[in-house]
Amino acid sequence: MTGYNIAIVGATGAVGGRMIKMLEETSLPIKSVKLLASSRSAGKVLRFKDKDLQVQEAKPSAFEGIDLALFSAGGGVSKQLAPEAVKRGAVVIDNTSAFRMDPAVPLVVPEVNPADLYQHHGLIANPNCSTIQMVVALEPLRKKFGLKKVIVTTMQAVSGAGNRAIQELNDETAAILAGKDYTPQVLPVSGDQKHYQIAFNPLAQIDVFEENGYTHEEWKMIHETKKIMANEDLQVTATCVRVPVAVAHSESVWFELEKDGATAAKLQELLAQAPGVVLEDDPAHQVFPQAVNAAGKKETFVGRVRADEEQKNAFHLYCVSDNLLKGAAWNSVQIAEYLDQMDLVRVPQK
Amino acid sequence: MTGYNIAIVGATGAVGGRMIKMLEETSLPIKSVKLLASSRSAGKVLRFKDKDLQVQEAKPSAFEGIDLALFSAGGGVSKQLAPEAVKRGAVVIDNTSAFRMDPAVPLVVPEVNPADLYQHHGLIANPNCSTIQMVVALEPLRKKFGLKKVIVTTMQAVSGAGNRAIQELNDETAAILAGKDYTPQVLPVSGDQKHYQIAFNPLAQIDVFEENGYTHEEWKMIHETKKIMANEDLQVTATCVRVPVAVAHSESVWFELEKDGATAAKLQELLAQAPGVVLEDDPAHQVFPQAVNAAGKKETFVGRVRADEEQKNAFHLYCVSDNLLKGAAWNSVQIAEYLDQMDLVRVPQK
Repeated sequence: MTGYNIAIVGATGAVGGRMIKMLEETSLPIKSVKLLASSRSAGKVLRFKDKDLQVQEAKPSAFEGIDLALFSAGGGVSKQLAPEAVKRGAVVIDNTSAFRMDPAVPLVVPEVNPADLYQHHGLIANPNCSTIQMVVALEPLRKKFGLKKVIVTTMQAVSGAGNRAIQELNDETAAILAGKDYTPQVLPVSGDQKHYQIAFNPLAQIDVFEENGYTHEEWKMIHETKKIMANEDLQVTATCVRVPVAVAHSESVWFELEKDGATAAKLQELLAQAPGVVLEDDPAHQVFPQAVNAAGKKETFVGRVRADEEQKNAFHLYCVSDNLLKGAAWNSVQIAEYLDQMDLVRVPQK
Repeated sequence: MTGYNIAIVGATGAVGGRMIKMLEETSLPIKSVKLLASSRSAGKVLRFKDKDLQVQEAKPSAFEGIDLALFSAGGGVSKQLAPEAVKRGAVVIDNTSAFRMDPAVPLVVPEVNPADLYQHHGLIANPNCSTIQMVVALEPLRKKFGLKKVIVTTMQAVSGAGNRAIQELNDETAAILAGKDYTPQVLPVSGDQKHYQIAFNPLAQIDVFEENGYTHEEWKMIHETKKIMANEDLQVTATCVRVPVAVAHSESVWFELEKDGATAAKLQELLAQAPGVVLEDDPAHQVFPQAVNAAGKKETFVGRVRADEEQKNAFHLYCVSDNLLKGAAWNSVQIAEYLDQMDLVRVPQK
C-alpha cells in the first residue's frame, strides 16, 4: 500500500475531528493515519473510515515514520512538538498561531498563495480561521483591481474556541430559556480573567487584548492578511466579535481597490468564477450567505457585494465560511493535497 | 390636575410597552394616558402606574383633547392617523419611518440636534433605532474634531422586528436545542417572501432590499445620519445584520475625523463626559459594552475606542444600546421632555 503516513495532533478537539473527516474525503494517497493528543485523551477510540483507531500520546517518538503531521492542539504543543516532528522527517502543517509570523514559515491559503509552499523548510502554517475566508473572498478582486484597504467586522462562531465553547453556548442558552442561572467558564477566552455570557449576547473580545486596544484576533487578521497577500502596504483593520453561533464565521468586509473600473457587477462576476468561492448574491430573491448553509461545506460563501456610493473604488462584501473546515481542517488538508501535487511532501535537507 | 394628555399608538407592541414604562419614569407632567392600538387589540387591559387602562381603537376621534401622541404602530398607521392627531391639536412624536425624510419634519436625537425641535409643525420623527445609538456615540467626537466618513456594521436584536420576532427567536432556539424542526415565519422581514432561521444564525437582511443592493435599514442609517447631523456631505455606509439577540443592538463603527489631533485617549475623554453615553472601555480588565448589560438602560454604552493604525484621523468604536429604549421608546419620551422644557408642546398655527 503506497501513500503517506499521516498524524493528527489534537485529534480529539473540535478541529481535530474535522481533520479526520477531511482526510476521509481527500484524494491524497494515505497509507496510515495516527491520532495523537494529550496524555489525558490517549486511549480514546475514534473512527477513521471503517477502522477504530486508538488515540496515542503526542510525544517526539510518535512522529517516527510520519510523512505529514497536521497540528491543532494549541500553540504550546506546536512550539514543543512541531520541530520534533520535522526533525524526524515529517512535514508539519500547523493550525496554531505558533509559527505564522515566522518569516521562514510559509503562511498558506491555497487559493491565494500556493507558490509560497515551495519555500517550506518542513513547516507550513495554516492561517487564522477569520483571515482565511476573507482572503479567499478578496483575492480574485485583488488580482484584477489591486487592494488598498480592508475594514472588517467579524461575527465569529464559538467553535473557534473549541468543543468546550460549543458546549457552553448550548448549555447556557438552554439555561437562559428555562430561566435558570448559568456561570460562564469558557468564553470569551478560556485563559483570561473574566468570563461572560455568550447566549443572546455578542462579545467584542476574541483572544486576549493587546496594548493598543486591539485583540490578538484582530492583530492576526491584520498581519496575517498582509503576509498571505505579500503586501506590507495593504491597509487592514478589524473588529472581531464572538456571536451566539456554533459553526461558521460571518464577516462584513469593506474594501478599497487600487485601480479604477470596478463595479459591483464586475466583482460579482469575478467571485462567481473564483476558486473556493460560491457567490450567493441575489437580493431580489433574498439570497445572501448564511452560517447554517455554510456549516459543513468547504467553500467560502460571498454575497451582499455593493458599491460604497460615496467613495470611488470602495465596496462591501459579506462572506461566510465553516471556521472548522476552510478556517482550519480543510485548509490544512488542502495544503497537504497541494504539497502532494507539487511534490513537496519532504523535509528539505539543510 | 395639570399636565399633558398623552396617547400611545401601538401600545400593545414591543415598543409601546416600553413607552408605557418610560412614561411611568418620566418627569414630564402627565394628566392622562390613553392607550391606542388596532381594533384587534382594543379591549386589552394594560397597567400604567397603579391603574388598569383599557386599550382603545386608534381612530381619528381618539385624538380629541390629546396634547402629545407617541406613535409606534407601523408606517401605515402613522401616515393615516398622525395628520389626524395633529389636526386635532396633538403634537405627534412618530417612531416609524413614515415622515423621517420629510424636509418639513424634524428628525431628532436630543443629545445631537434638540434645536431642530423649534422647526416642528406638529410632527416630530424619531429616528431608526440603529441610527440613534450611533449618532449619540459619534456626536461628541464630531463636535470637537468634525466627522468625514462612517462605516458601520450592526449586530441588531430581533426585538426591532417586534414581539413576534422575540417569540420566534425563543421558540426556534428551544426547538433547535431539542433537535426539533421549526419553520420560521417572521424573520428576517415578516412581510418579505422568504423567512430564515435566526437561532444561531446571523441574517444580513434587515428590512427589504433596495435596487442598489443595500437594505432599507442600511439606507436609513445612511440618510438619517446625514439629516440628524445636518451634513449631506458626511459619508456614511452601512451593513446591517440581525443576530440571535433579544434586546440591544451592538455596532462596530469605523470613522474618519476631519481635523487632526485626535487620539484614542482624547476620544475616550470626550465620550466619558458626553450626555447619554456611558464609556465602558478598559481592555486590561476586559471591559467593553455588552447587550446583556445595556438592556433595560437608557444610555448608549461605548467602548473598544482605538486608532486605525494605518490611516490618519481614523478610529474604531463599538456601541451598544437598548433598541427598544434609546432606540425607540426612551428617545420618543425624551423628545417629549425636551418639547415640554422648550415650551413646544403645541401645534403652531399656519
